[in-house]
Amino acid sequence: MSDLPKSVSINEEGPREGFQIEPGSIPTARKIELIEALSETGLKHIQVTSFVNPKRVPGMADAEEVVRGFKPKPGVTYTGLWLNEKGLERARATGKLTLEGKISIYASEKFSMRNNNRTTAQEFEYARRVLDNYMEHGIPVERGSVAAAFGCNYQGDMPVATIMDIVRRIFELAQEHGIELKELSFADTMAWATPAHIKRLIGAVREKYPEQRLSLHLHDTRGMGIANAYAGLEMGVDMFDSCVAGLGGCPFAGHKGAAGNVCTEDLVFMCEEMGIETGIDLDKLIECARLAEDIVGHPLPGSVKLGGNLDKLRASVH
Amino acid sequence: MSDLPKSVSINEEGPREGFQIEPGSIPTARKIELIEALSETGLKHIQVTSFVNPKRVPGMADAEEVVRGFKPKPGVTYTGLWLNEKGLERARATGKLTLEGKISIYASEKFSMRNNNRTTAQEFEYARRVLDNYMEHGIPVERGSVAAAFGCNYQGDMPVATIMDIVRRIFELAQEHGIELKELSFADTMAWATPAHIKRLIGAVREKYPEQRLSLHLHDTRGMGIANAYAGLEMGVDMFDSCVAGLGGCPFAGHKGAAGNVCTEDLVFMCEEMGIETGIDLDKLIECARLAEDIVGHPLPGSVKLGGNLDKLRASVH
Repeated sequence: MSDLPKSVSINEEGPREGFQIEPGSIPTARKIELIEALSETGLKHIQVTSFVNPKRVPGMADAEEVVRGFKPKPGVTYTGLWLNEKGLERARATGKLTLEGKISIYASEKFSMRNNNRTTAQEFEYARRVLDNYMEHGIPVERGSVAAAFGCNYQGDMPVATIMDIVRRIFELAQEHGIELKELSFADTMAWATPAHIKRLIGAVREKYPEQRLSLHLHDTRGMGIANAYAGLEMGVDMFDSCVAGLGGCPFAGHKGAAGNVCTEDLVFMCEEMGIETGIDLDKLIECARLAEDIVGHPLPGSVKLGGNLDKLRASVH
Repeated sequence: MSDLPKSVSINEEGPREGFQIEPGSIPTARKIELIEALSETGLKHIQVTSFVNPKRVPGMADAEEVVRGFKPKPGVTYTGLWLNEKGLERARATGKLTLEGKISIYASEKFSMRNNNRTTAQEFEYARRVLDNYMEHGIPVERGSVAAAFGCNYQGDMPVATIMDIVRRIFELAQEHGIELKELSFADTMAWATPAHIKRLIGAVREKYPEQRLSLHLHDTRGMGIANAYAGLEMGVDMFDSCVAGLGGCPFAGHKGAAGNVCTEDLVFMCEEMGIETGIDLDKLIECARLAEDIVGHPLPGSVKLGGNLDKLRASVH
């Protein structure tokens, strides 16, 4: 009936996805405070900032300062996001982040045209140049990534066959460069997925690439985030991007005010309660979620930070 | 892999579960406004109020006025909740509600002691007297119901075996009275369930009672509501209680400020997107969710009322 993994890896993206979408300016020191608090929870992979055009994303203008400021915890991998060569150069220049190259493709041609002014064919050409650049600089490339893999506000439904074709071309591109991808990630960038849809796509991918490690990047805009994560777990997905307190959302995706990314502590709660190890201290993570709310100055959507950990209740009744 | 039903029945409880927990006084006219708006969505079953002690639940003191006030829509069943004979008498006296008897048992003895001052054995004795009373008044009894079936803040985890024993005793009690139960409902009153737990319990019940129609009453206190509903759907559950906009929560369950019941429009969104018929107009329901927010005067937790219906986006791109 199900194929739940024994453990999962969680990539915390709250400091990046979260703070990029907040309307007001957040002091750099407070961003650093959250990154350092997250480092104490057992999270092993934290995306701390985004090296993007500060004119387009003013909340990320302090990317270098953030990276310079935080005290790294041994054993935790800190990464950043970039969308072009200039961003990569800025990330490299910090000398403090783990640089993770990836082959990243927008499944939706209309979204790609809108955001990057590239057709899907041009996306692949661009990805090839990016890959050459990674090779040249010795940046390891372990991840293939498909954005808007479940649907797009500008293009509509994304058929499984379309995504499978993109996946095939990603693998071809990797092979051309002698790269063996360790992870293949699917992003529900605009929250079109339902659990049944997750199972259809992930099922198709697993059937064709049974040994491939799969990852999901989920948004909770329509309340499906945790259910979609569960569907992924049932299909053997053991890697998730998520944001503490449910911070986040995509500033370019066209839905203001809605919930953000799938919430890390709610995901950790579900996994741990189902016997899936996360390596994360839920109580410490809940404290981080409250800290995140304090930093942004408004309520954030995560539920467990209000509903509370069950272990405390268990302890109180025994 | 899954056993999704073709259609589901949704029992809207927002006007009851929702308004009972709101701290301020809500004008009767506004409660009526929501009930009448919900009646236009395609919902076929609406629980409009609760005939409980107004000293314990002041927000329900206007139960009779609410029932007197709304204009019923043909084809919609309107029900009320009562917890004792006095409440039933009040519901009967309105002459306007469909009276639905049920055999209702708290799985958690500690919760039952705390709320009703009864052991589980005494719960069953009490249920027998209630059943006699229903028979005497010709009130049909079609539902067996287990509250706190997945865990309890005062007792801890609820083993599947404990619940199965309660289910067995509910069926015995029904049989003694010559009643054939049409529905068996499990409530996650204090939000202890995860999807894996739903599958364990519902799987055990279906194995022993394969023909029995099953229903879930889910809370979203820890963000698991929609994922738990999905797990239920996968096990063939085709009946859900839910609350528009995610109104609700249990005033006696001991967690203030947390999310309420599973959200009707999020549930409808998931079902319709997965090809499961609900008979409900999602756009009209989203309008009701916004109305509910306006009535309570603060944001409510449901996501689709912010994220929006996908059908509109589909229409806009084709």
